[in-house]
Amino acid sequence: MNDELPETERTRLRRRRERGHFDRQTIHGILDAMPMCHVGCVIDGTPVVMPTLQWREGDSVYWHASGGGRGVKAWVKGPVCLTVSILDGLVLARSGLHHSANYRSVMVFGQPRLVEDPTRKNELFNGLIEALYPGRSRELRPLTPSEIKRTAILSLPIAEASAKIRAHGAVDEEADYDWPVWSGVVPVRLQVMQPEPDPRNIEGIDVPDYVRRLTLG
Amino acid sequence: MNDELPETERTRLRRRRERGHFDRQTIHGILDAMPMCHVGCVIDGTPVVMPTLQWREGDSVYWHASGGGRGVKAWVKGPVCLTVSILDGLVLARSGLHHSANYRSVMVFGQPRLVEDPTRKNELFNGLIEALYPGRSRELRPLTPSEIKRTAILSLPIAEASAKIRAHGAVDEEADYDWPVWSGVVPVRLQVMQPEPDPRNIEGIDVPDYVRRLTLG
Repeated sequence: MNDELPETERTRLRRRRERGHFDRQTIHGILDAMPMCHVGCVIDGTPVVMPTLQWREGDSVYWHASGGGRGVKAWVKGPVCLTVSILDGLVLARSGLHHSANYRSVMVFGQPRLVEDPTRKNELFNGLIEALYPGRSRELRPLTPSEIKRTAILSLPIAEASAKIRAHGAVDEEADYDWPVWSGVVPVRLQVMQPEPDPRNIEGIDVPDYVRRLTLG
Repeated sequence: MNDELPETERTRLRRRRERGHFDRQTIHGILDAMPMCHVGCVIDGTPVVMPTLQWREGDSVYWHASGGGRGVKAWVKGPVCLTVSILDGLVLARSGLHHSANYRSVMVFGQPRLVEDPTRKNELFNGLIEALYPGRSRELRPLTPSEIKRTAILSLPIAEASAKIRAHGAVDEEADYDWPVWSGVVPVRLQVMQPEPDPRNIEGIDVPDYVRRLTLG
């Protein structure tokens, strides 16, 4: 079984000196680790890059938006590039241009489509909740047909995609290793902090376990 | 003194129900808090969204790239949208569609230009270092004319830009407030962790204060 996605003109853009990663496991792992993404589209010849939350189910990535919004109109009209990036650290080298960042990033290219079937849309909305908070979708007030109708879900196949990962220390010019300056990596991570309950929560409802277990990145 | 940027067709895109922020102080504050950005451009009709590091100096935002790269060729050929987003929290509501995220985000639209003057480029490279690590640029091995020449710096005026901020708890339908489920905000932040010195550091060089003081977001 070949689990590599094909390399295309667009996904090749991700490569500079390093090789991109085209295997599904790496790509899915990064998408699953970080809900925040940036969706780029073209509106009147101008690129527009909007942050939103994505979630993955199988070989597609999804996001939602208010049905009548300008985003939705643009996303269904032409290709998008959905990029997820996780900053893992800052790299301090011995000369300015070798400073860098450690990160994991995925780009997915393609033509998004609207999910039309209300039953499927409802399943997908639950999937978004479950992706972040396993078990929560059953605890929520169910969506109404009108809510489902007026919210658009965009679906993008993960067919043309690549990942790029930098995960190492500074790489300096050989002659610079005796330069007397501190070099190294400053790791960073997204820290999930103490939950802040809504002031209108019903008394006696505790922070759920899926919130206590939440990790990002 | 009017310190608001003009609202344009493109920056208006940022608004849905909430108002965008057009004041320089808010926009600069978000750009200064987070070096990681996503630059969107159009290549052969396709949007391409690439993560990179940005820094601000005055009323421009800068990023750099290998001089011969495809990114540079695309960025100087047409408009870009540079977006910085900081995830501040996850918002859990009482029904699925009111779940949200707290975040601060800035979009800057415009035509980037290459900085050509080598002296100015050198200053700007130092500016990138100083933006993250005040005092470090003087400690580094100076850049060579060849390094300065072969690395491109892109400059984008912060003239057409807007910020969007969400910083509040769940907003549910009034009828849902007695639904028995936990609601609230799970704050997240970028945590700067213990620095990892390069194994080839000269003995006796300590972690600099500017590294110990580093914060992001």
